[in-house]
Amino acid sequence: MKRRSWWGWGIEGEGLSPERRAALGALLGTQMDVGGLVALSPPRLEDVALPPMRARVPSALEHLVVSDPRERAGHTYGKAYRDVVRGLAGDLAPAPDVVALPESEADVERLLAWADEEGYAVIPYGGGSSVVGGVEARCREDYPAVVSLDLRKLSGVLELDRVSRAARIAAGTFGPDLEAALAADGLTLRHFPQSFEYSTLGGWLATRAGGHFATLHTHIDDFVESLRLVTPRGGLESRRLPGSGAGPSPDRFFLGSEGALGIITSAWMRVMPRPVHRASQTFAYPDCLCRGRGRARSLAQSGLHPANARVLDRWEALINGVGDGTRAFLLVAFESWDHPVDASLARAREIALGAGGEPIERAMAGALDTTALADAEDEQAAQRWRKMFLRGPYLRDALAEMGMIVETFETAITWDRFESFHREVREAAVRTLAEVAPGGAVVTSRLTHVYPDGAAPYFTVIAPGPPGALVAAWDAVKVAVSETILAAGGTITHHHAVGRDHQPFYARQVPPLFGEVLQAAKRQLDPRGILNPGCLLAGS
Amino acid sequence: MKRRSWWGWGIEGEGLSPERRAALGALLGTQMDVGGLVALSPPRLEDVALPPMRARVPSALEHLVVSDPRERAGHTYGKAYRDVVRGLAGDLAPAPDVVALPESEADVERLLAWADEEGYAVIPYGGGSSVVGGVEARCREDYPAVVSLDLRKLSGVLELDRVSRAARIAAGTFGPDLEAALAADGLTLRHFPQSFEYSTLGGWLATRAGGHFATLHTHIDDFVESLRLVTPRGGLESRRLPGSGAGPSPDRFFLGSEGALGIITSAWMRVMPRPVHRASQTFAYPDCLCRGRGRARSLAQSGLHPANARVLDRWEALINGVGDGTRAFLLVAFESWDHPVDASLARAREIALGAGGEPIERAMAGALDTTALADAEDEQAAQRWRKMFLRGPYLRDALAEMGMIVETFETAITWDRFESFHREVREAAVRTLAEVAPGGAVVTSRLTHVYPDGAAPYFTVIAPGPPGALVAAWDAVKVAVSETILAAGGTITHHHAVGRDHQPFYARQVPPLFGEVLQAAKRQLDPRGILNPGCLLAGS
Repeated sequence: MKRRSWWGWGIEGEGLSPERRAALGALLGTQMDVGGLVALSPPRLEDVALPPMRARVPSALEHLVVSDPRERAGHTYGKAYRDVVRGLAGDLAPAPDVVALPESEADVERLLAWADEEGYAVIPYGGGSSVVGGVEARCREDYPAVVSLDLRKLSGVLELDRVSRAARIAAGTFGPDLEAALAADGLTLRHFPQSFEYSTLGGWLATRAGGHFATLHTHIDDFVESLRLVTPRGGLESRRLPGSGAGPSPDRFFLGSEGALGIITSAWMRVMPRPVHRASQTFAYPDCLCRGRGRARSLAQSGLHPANARVLDRWEALINGVGDGTRAFLLVAFESWDHPVDASLARAREIALGAGGEPIERAMAGALDTTALADAEDEQAAQRWRKMFLRGPYLRDALAEMGMIVETFETAITWDRFESFHREVREAAVRTLAEVAPGGAVVTSRLTHVYPDGAAPYFTVIAPGPPGALVAAWDAVKVAVSETILAAGGTITHHHAVGRDHQPFYARQVPPLFGEVLQAAKRQLDPRGILNPGCLLAGS
Repeated sequence: MKRRSWWGWGIEGEGLSPERRAALGALLGTQMDVGGLVALSPPRLEDVALPPMRARVPSALEHLVVSDPRERAGHTYGKAYRDVVRGLAGDLAPAPDVVALPESEADVERLLAWADEEGYAVIPYGGGSSVVGGVEARCREDYPAVVSLDLRKLSGVLELDRVSRAARIAAGTFGPDLEAALAADGLTLRHFPQSFEYSTLGGWLATRAGGHFATLHTHIDDFVESLRLVTPRGGLESRRLPGSGAGPSPDRFFLGSEGALGIITSAWMRVMPRPVHRASQTFAYPDCLCRGRGRARSLAQSGLHPANARVLDRWEALINGVGDGTRAFLLVAFESWDHPVDASLARAREIALGAGGEPIERAMAGALDTTALADAEDEQAAQRWRKMFLRGPYLRDALAEMGMIVETFETAITWDRFESFHREVREAAVRTLAEVAPGGAVVTSRLTHVYPDGAAPYFTVIAPGPPGALVAAWDAVKVAVSETILAAGGTITHHHAVGRDHQPFYARQVPPLFGEVLQAAKRQLDPRGILNPGCLLAGS
């Protein structure tokens, strides 16, 4: 029987084969000194010490609460590098006392009432794919008990309005289940974060996840028609409206609230027919990132609204098996369920070919051209790439097991400041890696989303880790990069959320008086401060 | 010298000519009994009694504060029908004590500090075009004085970032000044509410104004990159970011806050090049609204994102001089600064011609075809229509002077409920008009904005008013319509804002716990409750 890994990504046993691990090590050996690495291997769960279970569960709720070691271990961390490394080290100190598995919204209300009464911390848990400490009970010692509230049993498309093209979907629905249910009616939400297989609608909404579209509607936010939440003070539901100007948007206030203000139980989402018209093209540029970036800006400012417009620097391209490490690439893809998109691609081609761009044959572009995901004309190639994209986190885990440092960070900045910003952030990573991981490092970057007024750069860092000090080394890089992002005017996160890892930086980014508003809202909705303490907002 | 009317729309003396008034009366006489009307005429300002001026102005602020009768009278009301009628009746009971005219953000801070110290109410005032009581001091008796804080001197494009296509614009900038400043660089904000000439950026932001685009980006919200506000507890500024997932959006929280949580002083707005490619077409449908509406839905769900997609029922068309009162019309327009839009129009034509639609020759469509405003291929015709559109409020004032009831109301609803919703709202208006204005009435409707999941219907009501009871009669219609909208699941406003007229209904629409969040934010940012009391949020 397939079961979720308690320490790493996805399903146990679905990671990289020994052969691929060996090949990966050999490839990295050409770029950095991997000689002194100390490999980690997952401990047996029965050998790992869990902190005592302290919760008192009333008999009326016993059927909704579990506390077996596997569930507690699996709900201890998200899936950040520092989470995986701690899991591999057998460190489960912040494990929740119990895992609650509500089967209905009423169950969520009952569980919250119990926790509020007892003063237990409640950490909402969707797919557990947070890479920012969003589900970790760092507050454990400050509360008599911690409840991980896993919404996985609140699953499915609950209502479908085919006329308005909207669906009410339970918050605990995982990506594949959600798409399968909508596909039966020829519809799709088309939200494909890399965590797609192991993340849920509720998690996407609570964290303002970034999805498939690289322009126009980039975050899940724009697809929300209305939300339902449960707070310790009761439930809340916004009206289903296609648009409104009646006061500040309640939906927008709870999008990004990361479980600190309430627990999202379901949402009416705008859905769309599955695309049938597709066109895509990849272009190469003879430098690192800047010309391709310039073209991406023109594309984002064209009003063409491509479904995809990704820029990869030469290192990203190299890793993706495209080019020889001297050229950057821009991938453009259009799609529609209604009309041909060839004219749009033709105009995009004109834009992309400026500044020394060169179109790449599909065969040459290889996997890269299918980064259009569902956009690709070649459905099989798209599925191959999609599989590769979604399996990315397994690769990350394999590197962690080899003793490598590997992680991503991401932000957004307006175009006028992009060049110096990108350079400074990159340099901060490289400089700090040289200190903490002197065996060499690779820092790659790409643009995941482009806007008329700016872009979201995304960095991947790989370096041989100092044995025994992986988390500290990574934290040093994270702090250096985050400080640089803040000082240079970026956002501490474009789509990975704030969680606990970004919280100290977010506290400096958020306008102070708006921070006070969030705290006032917290006091109003969660007077005892039991909801996801320390996530998003300062607290224990 | 041109000067603003103190009781009605726009510039004194720019209303309808006596000839046009006579023609209008004759036209209406064919539809309803206008025999018993009692005409109103604006009183001389010197004959109107203003309430006493109670504010104590410190000498350091005297240069920023005026209290002459014309300014006080002009800042007493917005421009709702009930405002105009009360002005015509010489009723200025809620006049502010003084009008403050800050010349800088620092002045706004100083004025707020003074008002906070004295406990004076402060009503932010942009262009004063509110049709929902947004600038009216109904709280006058509950405060020792009321300050109308007019931002008109905070005007102009303060910074321009051509690379990111963004501009920081002062909140008090009126539409024409804003567009003229951007036009110098070939740019435009392209936000054209009907109030365009007499409303300001700050007002648009505070009220989530609806603008030019009939699909995709319909409200001003989507063009905001960052905001600056002043509150009694200090200033607040969000980062300039093209996109972010760091917590709930601070901008979205203050958009729609209607001066109750802070005073917007400037904003970085996303701007765009002026369009050069245009295509438009009008289609007729052999019934009232439903087939045209069905086509509009298909269009909104096509992903074509037309700049305009308006539906007019047969009465709207008749008033616009198109058709014989038996057909509804759908106008579709595309535009771009980057690429030809003919292919988009061709596909839209296919969609529009379903369900018995018939294309209308440009000459036949007359003024209607130029409802595309700046979209029209015929620039002169567009300007003619635009002038007509922007002069609409003068027509409204002329009807009020004739003793008519005339006003608009608007909402939004998802497509699945549209048909019954539209019928019920219309019937509520007709039924109540029959009671309060038995001389007959016209109720027209159109769709101002269409979305994939719904539409924003807009109703215009014209009826002979009961002499001496115009406001009461209008209020009866407003209450009946608003109750119906609420009960049937719509929003109390799609783009006219909440103000004071919609406040009791908004209080029932807003999810109660989010209403508490807004009140908590109010206490945090405005502890003495001096900001626009009773607007948006319940209060004195």
